[in-house]
Amino acid sequence: MINSRKVIGIIGGMGPMATADMFRKIIERTDASCDREHLHILIDNNTDIPDRTASILAGSDEPVSYMVASAKRLADAGADMLIISCDTSHFFYNKVAANCEIPILHMPEETAKVMSKMGIRCAGLLATVGTLKSEVYDKIFAKYGIEIVKPDDEGQKKLMHMIYDEVKAGKCADTAALDSTLDKMEEQGCEAFILGCTELPIAYEGYTGRNFLDPAVCVAETAIVAAGGKLKSEVTV
Amino acid sequence: MINSRKVIGIIGGMGPMATADMFRKIIERTDASCDREHLHILIDNNTDIPDRTASILAGSDEPVSYMVASAKRLADAGADMLIISCDTSHFFYNKVAANCEIPILHMPEETAKVMSKMGIRCAGLLATVGTLKSEVYDKIFAKYGIEIVKPDDEGQKKLMHMIYDEVKAGKCADTAALDSTLDKMEEQGCEAFILGCTELPIAYEGYTGRNFLDPAVCVAETAIVAAGGKLKSEVTV
Repeated sequence: MINSRKVIGIIGGMGPMATADMFRKIIERTDASCDREHLHILIDNNTDIPDRTASILAGSDEPVSYMVASAKRLADAGADMLIISCDTSHFFYNKVAANCEIPILHMPEETAKVMSKMGIRCAGLLATVGTLKSEVYDKIFAKYGIEIVKPDDEGQKKLMHMIYDEVKAGKCADTAALDSTLDKMEEQGCEAFILGCTELPIAYEGYTGRNFLDPAVCVAETAIVAAGGKLKSEVTV
Repeated sequence: MINSRKVIGIIGGMGPMATADMFRKIIERTDASCDREHLHILIDNNTDIPDRTASILAGSDEPVSYMVASAKRLADAGADMLIISCDTSHFFYNKVAANCEIPILHMPEETAKVMSKMGIRCAGLLATVGTLKSEVYDKIFAKYGIEIVKPDDEGQKKLMHMIYDEVKAGKCADTAALDSTLDKMEEQGCEAFILGCTELPIAYEGYTGRNFLDPAVCVAETAIVAAGGKLKSEVTV
């Protein structure tokens, strides 16, 4: 046992596949040659948490108590730090963190830190209407002096179609349909795009020619280092 | 919240990728149209558990106390039933189950039940030396009247190389290197192969032309039903 290592907890279930994806990203980016060199990770895939987008749009804080209970469960089981594996849920971050005894890594903030280190001053945000409305990314990125550009209405509709009717429905995403939107965003000054919805890294797997950044990878890498694990050499930054 | 549903706990970390794979299999085989229709799953990816094969070969029970602690952690966090996401570790099943207050599903036994329903009388066992030595599959399969065939010494060496030096080390598995071993086993009467190490479904992803059965899928399906979830129609049996 490597006693100096810390235990990572994942508040998950929002949704389950995004939770599994976060888990996989931590494992894949940990430089380990055997099981015991990997990190101790606790996951609460709590699918009872009410829908976050619906709660935000209704002005309800209902998910908070569920997320606080999940944080407590993970801390009691031995977690030293937490990750919330859902972009939209970061709308409730402050209320959950205020009621949690261990630190919670902030996925959008870890993304902003990476972009800041990369010298990016203007980023395109690809996310759900719920995440856009929550302004989680806007506020954090403003702190790091990075301007956020969003798709126009037509582009956002295409993006929602890709997320809900293609990826979430288990179909192949037609990324070409969004190319003109991304072109326009680049013309507006976007130097990179935030894949700010956990379905998007799936849609854009293997896609090349744009500068994409996956928030799940950013927070996974921060967690690995914070937990005393070894990062693989092909790190994001 | 669907109160009648039960919480599934996974004693994981043996290895981490196999744990992530078990998690993904439960999600993928659950018939759910939204996050809340999925099951509540708790995972303890405890990478501190000593190597199981090494312990079995040394005649040591060292992993037992770690597995019992993991079971307790999951039960305390709210799990109603457990899965051990590692074939080899089932050597310690009785000692862990005797010290655990909630039921633990037995992965090799769930596999035997499925093969028995499929009418298979002779199965090839692809597993670690630890699993072979433990005779976990032999004993359970004998109960169901199914004969077990194992690779020859050379084939077993190739298999251990694939598991330890390829999959566990995060490298791509060279499945072609094992083809002649599997051919020989089919000549000995094998009607199907048990992917009796949780790293093997990863190694054999996308591989076709053999009758493989994945114990992780068998136990995942049992867990979904036992937890009150809905199985997708394309079930194993």
